[in-house]
This record gives sequence, structure tokens and C-alpha cells, in this order.
Amino acid sequence: MRVGVLTGGGDCPGLNAVIRGIVRKGVQEYGYDFVGFRDGWRGPLEGDTVHLDIPAVRGILPRGGTILGSSRTNPLQQENGIRRIKDNLAKEEIDALVAIGGEDTLGVAARLADEYGIQVVGVPKTIDNDLSATDYTFGFDTAVNIATEAIDRLHTTAESHMRVLVVEVMGRHAGWIALHSGLAGGANVILIPERRFDVDQVCAWVTSRFKASYAPIVVVAEGAQPKDGDMVLKDDSLDSFGHVRLSGVGEWLAKQIERRTGKEARTTVLGHVQRGGTPSAFDRWLATRFGLHAIECVRDGEFGKMVALRGTDIVRVPIAEATSRLKTVDASLYEEVSVFFG
Amino acid sequence: MRVGVLTGGGDCPGLNAVIRGIVRKGVQEYGYDFVGFRDGWRGPLEGDTVHLDIPAVRGILPRGGTILGSSRTNPLQQENGIRRIKDNLAKEEIDALVAIGGEDTLGVAARLADEYGIQVVGVPKTIDNDLSATDYTFGFDTAVNIATEAIDRLHTTAESHMRVLVVEVMGRHAGWIALHSGLAGGANVILIPERRFDVDQVCAWVTSRFKASYAPIVVVAEGAQPKDGDMVLKDDSLDSFGHVRLSGVGEWLAKQIERRTGKEARTTVLGHVQRGGTPSAFDRWLATRFGLHAIECVRDGEFGKMVALRGTDIVRVPIAEATSRLKTVDASLYEEVSVFFG
Amino acid sequence: MRVGVLTGGGDCPGLNAVIRGIVRKGVQEYGYDFVGFRDGWRGPLEGDTVHLDIPAVRGILPRGGTILGSSRTNPLQQENGIRRIKDNLAKEEIDALVAIGGEDTLGVAARLADEYGIQVVGVPKTIDNDLSATDYTFGFDTAVNIATEAIDRLHTTAESHMRVLVVEVMGRHAGWIALHSGLAGGANVILIPERRFDVDQVCAWVTSRFKASYAPIVVVAEGAQPKDGDMVLKDDSLDSFGHVRLSGVGEWLAKQIERRTGKEARTTVLGHVQRGGTPSAFDRWLATRFGLHAIECVRDGEFGKMVALRGTDIVRVPIAEATSRLKTVDASLYEEVSVFFG
Amino acid sequence: MRVGVLTGGGDCPGLNAVIRGIVRKGVQEYGYDFVGFRDGWRGPLEGDTVHLDIPAVRGILPRGGTILGSSRTNPLQQENGIRRIKDNLAKEEIDALVAIGGEDTLGVAARLADEYGIQVVGVPKTIDNDLSATDYTFGFDTAVNIATEAIDRLHTTAESHMRVLVVEVMGRHAGWIALHSGLAGGANVILIPERRFDVDQVCAWVTSRFKASYAPIVVVAEGAQPKDGDMVLKDDSLDSFGHVRLSGVGEWLAKQIERRTGKEARTTVLGHVQRGGTPSAFDRWLATRFGLHAIECVRDGEFGKMVALRGTDIVRVPIAEATSRLKTVDASLYEEVSVFFG
Repeated sequence: MRVGVLTGGGDCPGLNAVIRGIVRKGVQEYGYDFVGFRDGWRGPLEGDTVHLDIPAVRGILPRGGTILGSSRTNPLQQENGIRRIKDNLAKEEIDALVAIGGEDTLGVAARLADEYGIQVVGVPKTIDNDLSATDYTFGFDTAVNIATEAIDRLHTTAESHMRVLVVEVMGRHAGWIALHSGLAGGANVILIPERRFDVDQVCAWVTSRFKASYAPIVVVAEGAQPKDGDMVLKDDSLDSFGHVRLSGVGEWLAKQIERRTGKEARTTVLGHVQRGGTPSAFDRWLATRFGLHAIECVRDGEFGKMVALRGTDIVRVPIAEATSRLKTVDASLYEEVSVFFG
Repeated sequence: MRVGVLTGGGDCPGLNAVIRGIVRKGVQEYGYDFVGFRDGWRGPLEGDTVHLDIPAVRGILPRGGTILGSSRTNPLQQENGIRRIKDNLAKEEIDALVAIGGEDTLGVAARLADEYGIQVVGVPKTIDNDLSATDYTFGFDTAVNIATEAIDRLHTTAESHMRVLVVEVMGRHAGWIALHSGLAGGANVILIPERRFDVDQVCAWVTSRFKASYAPIVVVAEGAQPKDGDMVLKDDSLDSFGHVRLSGVGEWLAKQIERRTGKEARTTVLGHVQRGGTPSAFDRWLATRFGLHAIECVRDGEFGKMVALRGTDIVRVPIAEATSRLKTVDASLYEEVSVFFG
Repeated sequence: MRVGVLTGGGDCPGLNAVIRGIVRKGVQEYGYDFVGFRDGWRGPLEGDTVHLDIPAVRGILPRGGTILGSSRTNPLQQENGIRRIKDNLAKEEIDALVAIGGEDTLGVAARLADEYGIQVVGVPKTIDNDLSATDYTFGFDTAVNIATEAIDRLHTTAESHMRVLVVEVMGRHAGWIALHSGLAGGANVILIPERRFDVDQVCAWVTSRFKASYAPIVVVAEGAQPKDGDMVLKDDSLDSFGHVRLSGVGEWLAKQIERRTGKEARTTVLGHVQRGGTPSAFDRWLATRFGLHAIECVRDGEFGKMVALRGTDIVRVPIAEATSRLKTVDASLYEEVSVFFG
Repeated sequence: MRVGVLTGGGDCPGLNAVIRGIVRKGVQEYGYDFVGFRDGWRGPLEGDTVHLDIPAVRGILPRGGTILGSSRTNPLQQENGIRRIKDNLAKEEIDALVAIGGEDTLGVAARLADEYGIQVVGVPKTIDNDLSATDYTFGFDTAVNIATEAIDRLHTTAESHMRVLVVEVMGRHAGWIALHSGLAGGANVILIPERRFDVDQVCAWVTSRFKASYAPIVVVAEGAQPKDGDMVLKDDSLDSFGHVRLSGVGEWLAKQIERRTGKEARTTVLGHVQRGGTPSAFDRWLATRFGLHAIECVRDGEFGKMVALRGTDIVRVPIAEATSRLKTVDASLYEEVSVFFG
């Protein structure tokens, strides 16, 4: 059995742990051969491969990023993209392909399976934790830890200068990182894409915090939007999957708060530091188990499936089902957390 | 409504987050009054209380330990212990009691509920993660992160000197910390209390690792025991709950490895650093939610229950059920992880 | 003896350690009384004080920020500012004042000493490490550690996506943070305010790094400027000390690199996280010793002096001398480090 | 020019940074060739070499340990040891040797220079910071940070259970790690090898701390000894340099404290975690600069010298002078710190 492996989309702590899990178990227990494809779908699209065996995965467990490289290359936007992939997989004599990626990457995988009968197993990856069918995705815990540590640090500056500190964290469509890091960091306001926010309400929380002689921390997901539709936070560029790039809600909000409350406000945009570096122990555990179970799926001939976490168990779910719906923060959870606002 | 709160057993990162969650929601949303009892069951036993209101819980979220203090005082071993607790609760006009603790603490809580109809809600706490009925307990993730970071560090010493490093982690009856940190830290051998180990097998793994020109890390839970019953790892002292104190499996094993393989072996006993200090973001999240849900239980009049994590939901389970059975590492999970041994 | 203490300027990890050192030694060994002034010079200007004794400094050693609060209030810009301070010090019966701050704060202290004979001792504080007369200032090591950890994390994202990552760090007038964190983080280009940079040279280094199949990290101090004087990186606002606010060199540079090399480039602005949170061990050590020696200065009647680090010794230097010249990165040190560029 | 490099003695964070500094500058600026010797003096003794060029040093800056391996092999204890080294250096056509190590390693280097005119440059390495002639050695700052973080964590356990926590840190002959981490961690007692301690005095400090309603942390260097000569803390084994192995002062002291004060006391022995893992930013900076300056020494033909830190400058000192005297904590510094005891 010859198995291809690729990692697509934004990089995420834990990708290397998945790859290691797949290869260690695949080689040692099942005697499989492996081919790594470079840079997500660009690899099979262009036939760009990298050697993948046990020595290649030594020492990569604690390393962030992905030894296979990644990209947002979308074969659906390329002429005959899916077809070329199919041909290159055939040329490499690939029997099964493990695709590690998010909604977009797994969407392509599902198409490959449907249209050409390619034997695909998926491993879900999104640092935003917004993929349904799995309780958590790896990388999320690391991002939340990094954001929480940053919020911990910012408290001392906020208190020393009695300033508002706005922290913009990742989360374009879902507020999981904002919600978890905001709660864990003791933020006084948490704003998420799932619920348009009212700037006056935010200012009221800020003011009430100052009244208690504390300085407020506002955690805002990059995709959060104000209620009044007047905000122009989008720039006109699209990424390769056709996503609009958002930017600047943190900066915008800090200015609004300064203007409306008269208090100094500063913004910190955490940005790429949230997704880099060594994975947390939880992410190494989850990512490794995803890898082990993905190759078990291959061995069992369970294709078109994706591994997923349910409680403490790793289960298998249809890829298509898993990617059909975004997992967002529901209203009741947001209400639960809002006891700490203000 | 007047609610008592106490924390019992070994300290654990997240205890303060639970207390804060209970008090913030209890005061703000339900208008309850709170009484803190000092040092676990010693507090209600001796009528030793501490003031507990919103200012008292400010700033405690990121702090390890417990502002209420803790102890292993067991009222079941005291003359009229349960009775005296009942009387002191009455004297303080306590309507309901939230007991945060492990098997022992919750066992007393269950007795109080059964025998005297005291209205009790439980919050599970064990750094060892060995309480059934909940997917995870808070503190565990922090301990695993600390142990993993230590293992990461020890790799470089092991490699530089081509030595065996034995790391003894917590886990008297269950190997969860060893299993998670060992996997996350890339250990070459993981030994847990649930399965007696064969020293010769350990030495075989160690030797095979050296043959691949790498230095082995052996992670061993403090409660792990060798197969041959000849080990004398117990000292004769008992703690106040009647538990035998174990000590020294790490040191013992390192000597065995040195003797049998001829390789230098060193031991590190992580000890108390695993349970102290600021909680991880996951533990702050879980502990805070446990606190919020525990006080909701009180509001709903659901007594004799304990909050628990199932997937991403907080549920309520009978205290008695939760503490009746230790949650140990099952054989299949240990097998799954063992692909990385050697 | 009654001693006033204040902390001025931007907050900095270690301020609390200084305060604790001063108070512990002053009370225990010399029997002094202490008065804290709030928010830098605003405190003595408005007679706003805070109680300062041994219980007040318990537990503050590991905490970032300052329990006294800080501000950039400049009494020299206030009508009769210096005079009002003198009067308020008299009203509080202050015999000596310990001023903890940077160039601006210590400048005011020097004026107070010169014009009114106020007995002042200075403790140097600048996270930028740009105060002459001391080898290091506290807070700097913490900032460098935080920036280095961020750079470590960003490497994995840069490699996974083969992108340029530009990291903007603090350093308006001096490049110490950029130089130290850039070297420690293995950056491929480091740009500092002391030397105008040539964008084409930066692009040449970036390109050469990609040729070696690695992704470049560019560390740029916020005050670094390109050679060609065409950059408009200043906004028109001034802070209370009359400093022009700079912003955006990182973002600007990333766009230039993208345009000139055709490679994707991303920017991370570390911002306030660099100055918050718990101090590193080195900063706790240095800040504590500064505090101990400052109060010893008071005891010895050595006023108009500032404590400073020389090698491993704490020495005393005239405040005026210490603040007369900015300590910048000299050309030979920059050359030494440049062996790692490209 | 053909330059040999070796690392001897216990591993230490920053060794790889030194190696990288030497090789990067040596190859790029001077066009030298390099030969790595494995495992300290064992390498040249047995002619065991490893390839050392720019690709070999890529990515090693943040990694603890040493890619060259290390050992305590002492050629002075081997028959014709020095002679065999000389011969192997000749066989490898080595023009100059850079020896990175502590007192023992540099002592051998000095002998080689004196007796056989081998052209040697030294780089000082001791995690204990006890080498005279240099303000700091790399690795020390990392060890102090790790120990301080551990002490921070232990505070919460001590407070929660009102227990004494004894922390044993490295430091056989000098108390630098104990002094710095104890001060930075807010310890209540610090015991160092330079001054025999009085157990009753320790108990008095412990008791006074409990009286203030806080729990004491006692930091003790592994080489600290009680005043009364009755302690049997030595085991009979010697390491290869003839050093007596000490063990157990922490455990011993905890028992004494329990017996004499009646308070529960626990010990944590930090052990090998203090010397492993990624170096702090300061250590990466210092180690890199040591490497750059060491190869500059070679270029300048300044042999028999060792690089050293004085203030912020790297200077050159005779190897013999540097190793002739241990740098210990002097009485005045210990007095300065003792204001925090009790």
C-alpha cells in the first residue's frame, strides 16, 4: 500500500504530529510506503513530492508548522485541476491519500472521492476550531494558550496606565478563540463574529469597569462586526479561496472607545504568533491520535471519512457531512460567558 | 440563599477559577450570599470561615492554589465529624454547600447529603484525571503541559550525553498524566499503574532506541509497579485518608536500567511543580464553567449532583455514581500509544 | 525619615520589584516610613498618595506593571508644576524622594534637586535599554524574551508557507530590543533606528534566504527608517513629552518587500505584549537590587544620584550625567551581528 | 585554516549557539574549514569526528544540548591521553582548536597549549556561573529562569496547604543559581555552599513566615551544608573528574524542619530540567557572541586565551588565569539578599 499525505491551508501547531502519527503507525504496524506532497494541493497538482519515512518524521513532534509545506492553492480554480491531481496520484502509484486540512482542503478531497473514486481519508485542521463534527481541532488549544498569555500580560499595562486595551485575536467566522482566551484571560468584554456588537454597550462595560477602579480588556475576534452596518472593515482583496480579507476591527473599536468614553485605548493585534511555534500538550495528543486513527481508516478501507474527536474518543465521520456546516458559538454559551462582562 | 464553598484535597490549578465562577454568577445573577470554609472539611468541622464576595474573587483567575486553603482533613475519621459539620453549617445558616474536591472530599459530601439531608453540589477535582463521569478534570491539562515541557527539556540532555532519562510524574492509581505527557513529549517508554511493567521489556526498548542513535526518555507514573512482585516501593506511612505513600519507582527503575543495559541513567522526579502555578487556558475555561454550572445546580435545587464534562457540554451526574469507580487508562488506549515505544 | 516613591513613564516589568526592594529594606533595616505617589509626577503634583508599607508590597515581586500606577504627566509643562510638587512634598513631610523612571521622569527629578534642593534618588527605567550609565535596565530582558519567543513561533509559519515575516518590535530611538531579539531569534535581517536601511539591501537578503530554501524573518525596530527620506511614517500627534508618534514601519516594509521581490510578506506588530506581564528572573534580580541600593543611597545621604548596573555591581552615578545622552547601538556591534544577515 | 571544535562537561543551553557563531563567522568571513569532535575530549582522544559546516549549524540556535555531544572524559586520567590527542589533531590537520567547556575541559586545553604548543582558544561554559574572569556564563540565565518559574509554581501549593516547600537547585560549589532564583522567586530562605547554614536559624525563618500567615519556600543549593558537621550527604561514588557526588540536602533539610517546627515540609529536586531545553534570549545572545569572538581570537592568532564577558563587552583572558579560581558568592552579596529572609 502506497499512501500520499498532504497538508493544506494555513499552518497550525500539530500538523507535524499528525504526519508523524500516520507514518510511524503506517510503516511499523502495516508496512505501508508513504509519499509526501508539498504545499497542500499544489503538490499533487504539480507532482511535487517529498520523501516520507520514519527518519523523516524523527524529532518533528514538538515543531510547529508542517514539514510538507502548505499553501492555499485551490485546484478547483485551476484548469483541469482535479483531473491533473488524479493523474499525478496515478503516476505516483498512490493507493490512498490522507488530506490534512480545513473546510477548503477537505472540500477538494470530497470532490476527488466523488468524481474520481480517489481513496481519501481526511484529518480536520482549523486553528479557529470551527469545523463541525469534531469537538476540537488541534492547534486551537495552542492558539488559545498564546492569546491567554498575551491577555495576562496586557492586564498589567492596562492597570498601570488605567487604559483600555483592545486585543484582536483570530476568528474570521467563529469566535472560539476570542471566547476561550477572553474567558481564560479574564477579559471584560468579548466580541465574536456570531453576534454583531453594539459599540455603546461595549463602552458601557468599559466605563463600569473603570468605575470599579480596574482597567478593561476587550477581546475581539477579527471577524466581529458592529451592529450598525456602517463599518468598512473589508479591504477589496480576496485570497485564493475567494475569501474576503478583513482587517482592523480592533483598531477601529479602540478609536470608537476613545471618542465615546474619553479614555485612552490601545490595540494589540496578535496575528501570526497565534498559529506558530510548538504545540501545546493537548494539541500534540489530539494531533497524534488523529494521525494514528487516520492511517487505521486507510487500513480498514474506510474512505471518504474524516477522523473527529467526540469526548475522549476518536470517531470517523463522512467528510462531506463534516464540512457542510460551520461550527459557530451558540447563543447560550455566549450568554453563559457574559456574566463576566463589564 | 446562603451558600458555603470549600476546597478539599491536594491543591490543583483551577480551584480559584471555580470559586470565582460560583461567586460571580451567584452574586450577580441570583443575589446569593457566600461563606468560604477554610482548608477543606476542616473549615465546617471547626467553624472556620472566610469572607467570600465579589471583591474577594477579583484577580484570582490566573492564580494557582486556592484562596480558601485546602487540607486532607477527613471528618469520617473524627469523632462525630459529620455531626459537627452539620451543626456548624446550621450555625452559619448555610442553605447549600458547594464542595470542590476529589473522591474523598466528594465522598464526605455524599454522606452529608444522605445522612443529614445537607443540600450539597459537587465539583470534581483531581489533577490525576481519574474521576469517572467526567471527560476531564481541571488541573490535569496544566500538569500535562508542565510535564511535557520538562520532557522536552530533558531530551536535549539525554541526547547530548547519550543517557537514559527516567521522568517520574504524578499518578498514583491512574496513568493519565504519564500517558498524555509521555506521548506529547515523545517519550520512548511510558509506564502506568494500570499495567505492571516488565523491566526486561523496558530495557529492550531502551536498547533499541540507542541502536537508532537516539537517547531514550522513560516516563513512569509514580504508581507504576514492576511485574515481579519483588519491589519494595512503599514506605510504611499512611496519609490522613489512609493511602499508602509510594515513592521511588523512578529511582529504582533507573538503577535497574543501568545495571541491565550498562547505560548511564538519571532520574527526575517532577513532584509538586506539576500541581502549582497558573492554570492553562483549558483549565481556566473548564474550571470557570464548572463553577458557573455548580451554582446553577444550586439555583435549580439539584442537590446530590456533581458537574461533569461530556464532550464540550457541562452535565450533572449523581455524586455517588461519579465517585464509585476510578477512571483508569484502558488497555486499548495504552496499546494505541505503544506504537511509539522503543 | 519619610520617603516618597513614584514610578513614571511607560510601565515596565520589574517596577514592583524595585518598590518592594525599597520598602522591605527601608522599613526592616532603617525604620523608614514610606508614601507612594500615584501615577508618576501626577501624584506629587496633585497630592495623590497611596499607602506603602510591608503588607502593601507582599506578593508583588512576580507581578508586571506598577502598584503605584504610572503616567506620562510632565510637570514641566504644567503651570508652576515644579513648585506645586515641592509644596505637596512638604505637605506630606517627605524627606527624600525615590523617582523610578526614564529620561523624562529623571529629568524632572534632576530639576527638582537643582532648583529646590529636593533630596532625590533616581532608579533608571526604560524597556528600550537606551539609558547611558547603566549596562542594562530592568524590563529589557523580559521584552527581549517575549520578542524572541514570538520570533521562534513565527519561524514555523514562515517556513510552512515560504513567506517573509516582518516583526516590528519596540525601540523608538535605539535598536536594543531589535538587535537582541533578532539575534536570539535567528532573524535574517535586523533593522534599527541607529542606521537608516536600504530597502534594496533588505530585499537582497530576503531573496538570498529563499535561495537557500529557507523563509526569512525580518526584525525591525519601530523607529527604524529607510535611507531614502521619502517615508511618511510619522503621524502628526505628539505625546505629552512632545515625542512624535511613529507607526507602521513594519507594515510599510512588508509591502515594499512584496512589491520588489514578488514574495508574500506578512507583518506582526508585537506592541504592548512586550512590556507587560511577569518579569524574567534577570529583571527581578536587577530591579530588586536597584531598589535595595536606592534606599541605601537615601540612607547614605547620596542625593542627586541614580543607581546603575556596571558588570555585576550596582553603582551610583549623577542623575544629570545619566540622562544627558541616549545609549544607542554602536556601529561595531551592529556589524558583529550582521554576519547572520541574509 | 582548519579548526577543530569540541564541547565538554555537562550539557548547557547555549552550546549550539556557540558552535553556530563559530562556524557561521569562520566560514563566511574567514573561509575556514571546521572539524567537530564528538563527546568532548573523547573525540580527539579517539579520533571521532563529525562534519561541521554551515548546513550542519542551521536551525540549532534555539536547541538545547550540543550537536557535538558531550562527555566528562578526562584525558589526563587516560594513558598518554594528552599525547594521543595531539596525534589525532595532527592526523586531522587541525591548525587550531576551540574548546568549549568548564574548569575541567579548559584545564586540559591549557595543558595541551603548554605542553605541546597546540593552538587553543577557550569558551567558558558552566551552568553554575562559577568561573572567574567572566561576569556570566551562558546557560546560567536559562537555569535561573527555569528554577524561578518552578518556585513561582510552588508558592501556590505552599500557600494552599500551609506547608514548607524546600527546593533543591543546582550548585555544587557555588550558590549562584540558588541566590538568583531564590531572590527572583521570592524565597524566604536561601542556602548556598559558600556559607554553612544553621538549621535552627532556618527553622526560625520558617516559623516567622508562618506567623505572618504565609507559607515559606526554602531554596537550597545541592552543595549547601549545615554548620554542625554531622551531615552525611555524600555517597561514595566519584565521577570521572574525581568529584564526589552529593545528594539529598533538600530531603534531609525538609525532615529536619518537620521535626523541629512540627510543620509539614516537602522537597522538590529540580535536577536535570534546569540544564535542558531551549536557551533564554540572554543565553542565546551571550553564547552567540562568545562563538563570534572565539573565532576572531583564532583569526588574530591569540591562542591560550578564553573569551569572557565584562559588562557588555566580550574580552580575552588567559585560560589559565580564568580557571585558577572558582567564582563564589561573596559575603556582602549574600547579606544584601538576606533582607528577604524570614
